[in-house]
Amino acid sequence: VITIVGERLNSTRRAVAAAIAERDADFVRKEAVAQAEAGADFLDVNAAARLAQEIDDLKWMIGVVQEAVATPLCIDSPSPEAIAAGLEATRGEVLVNSITAERERAEQILPLVRDRGARVVGLTMGESGMPSTAAQRRDLAQEIVDLAARHGVPADHVYIDALVRPVSTESAQGREFLEGVRAIRDAGTGAHVICGLSNVAFGLPRRRLLNRTFLAMAMAMGLDAAIVDPLDQRLMATMRAGCALLEMDEFCVEYLAAHREGALGDE
Amino acid sequence: VITIVGERLNSTRRAVAAAIAERDADFVRKEAVAQAEAGADFLDVNAAARLAQEIDDLKWMIGVVQEAVATPLCIDSPSPEAIAAGLEATRGEVLVNSITAERERAEQILPLVRDRGARVVGLTMGESGMPSTAAQRRDLAQEIVDLAARHGVPADHVYIDALVRPVSTESAQGREFLEGVRAIRDAGTGAHVICGLSNVAFGLPRRRLLNRTFLAMAMAMGLDAAIVDPLDQRLMATMRAGCALLEMDEFCVEYLAAHREGALGDE
Repeated sequence: VITIVGERLNSTRRAVAAAIAERDADFVRKEAVAQAEAGADFLDVNAAARLAQEIDDLKWMIGVVQEAVATPLCIDSPSPEAIAAGLEATRGEVLVNSITAERERAEQILPLVRDRGARVVGLTMGESGMPSTAAQRRDLAQEIVDLAARHGVPADHVYIDALVRPVSTESAQGREFLEGVRAIRDAGTGAHVICGLSNVAFGLPRRRLLNRTFLAMAMAMGLDAAIVDPLDQRLMATMRAGCALLEMDEFCVEYLAAHREGALGDE
Repeated sequence: VITIVGERLNSTRRAVAAAIAERDADFVRKEAVAQAEAGADFLDVNAAARLAQEIDDLKWMIGVVQEAVATPLCIDSPSPEAIAAGLEATRGEVLVNSITAERERAEQILPLVRDRGARVVGLTMGESGMPSTAAQRRDLAQEIVDLAARHGVPADHVYIDALVRPVSTESAQGREFLEGVRAIRDAGTGAHVICGLSNVAFGLPRRRLLNRTFLAMAMAMGLDAAIVDPLDQRLMATMRAGCALLEMDEFCVEYLAAHREGALGDE
């Protein structure tokens, strides 16, 4: 099966920002439990909304989530200091979100990742900004894997995020992303390929339909992890069906279990 | 967008066989109209259930369907004689279903296809049976395109069906099929790639979920036509989302139109 990072505890969501500001532990706990029960393998925790208090906010959120569930966390911050503090507050397996191919930031974060035995998301962005073509995504992925290796982080701890861009404004970006995933896989770096889905459907109706359709496509091209809302039942059903179809779920054991639990929906 | 062949008027369905036997034109008409309205580009007509009367049955069904809708037909029969009779009874554009790489049958059917300016489905089966690997599928596709060319049928009139096999019994078959589609595309023959989906989910629950997930995957790998039930609304919504995501629907015009018509479902 693929690795699911639950995206809901992100302070860019207004309700999460409010819960952090009010120290509403009950809200955070419920979000954590619901995502864990829906099958998340990691829970993203982002408390960057109030920059000046990010470290305090993040440590509080991590404390609440770790009391509620045993699911590993994904420390999500633009700040190397917040990532360091988050790693210190976290027990067990952990994912860091994120570095890019930009050297300065990566060189601050990768030693933290290595010392903690953590995993790290690498966005295919470079000094010159966002990638447009599949080949740019592949080249940036290679740069990130090389950077990680130089800092002692092995390829199988690196999760390359090839950066989904909206098809509503540039219709070729769906295809460029998918071919990018395939090219990163074919390059044989040994890194995982992850993505946050929801950008692809920006500006279009029925975003969940587009998200789950794109997830199936990306899995066929080599994706093995995704940052998603695990409470989107149809998306999770698509993911489970995808694993059964791609030999990522031997004898369809997990698919059949999800069916028995009623998690595959009504048709 | 991709080419949709509506599969419902097939005498392997008990209700269709009964309607043919009873000359129930109303049943056939309703199935034809419903599939056309749901967006089918071709309507499959198969009347092979009563072998001894296949030609009479097929001509009757073609007559009823052509009176009801203007959608082109797909003449579906194992018998070269029935295909010849069907082509004669059909007006306008038409698809023949099917040939394989087996020479004797192909050499009977291809001249009919050429003389009629028809299109033809080519199943990737050879003298030695069903393909197992992606490479076998690609090689059989090439054989079929070459056979067609030798009989004056151009590659863009050939629809290669790479033969979906159930993942419940052989879990690698989903992946082998998908890689086969990709390999057929990459071979650059100029042929279309089509498939009948429903075999993939044989023996598993929630077959429609598996079908539409597999359709999205196959589209990402290069599929541009499919033999499906166009009354499966979620499958058609997935197909439309897939076209928007793969630059097969410029500016998402058809996707947005389907949304306005309520054809994309509720989320």
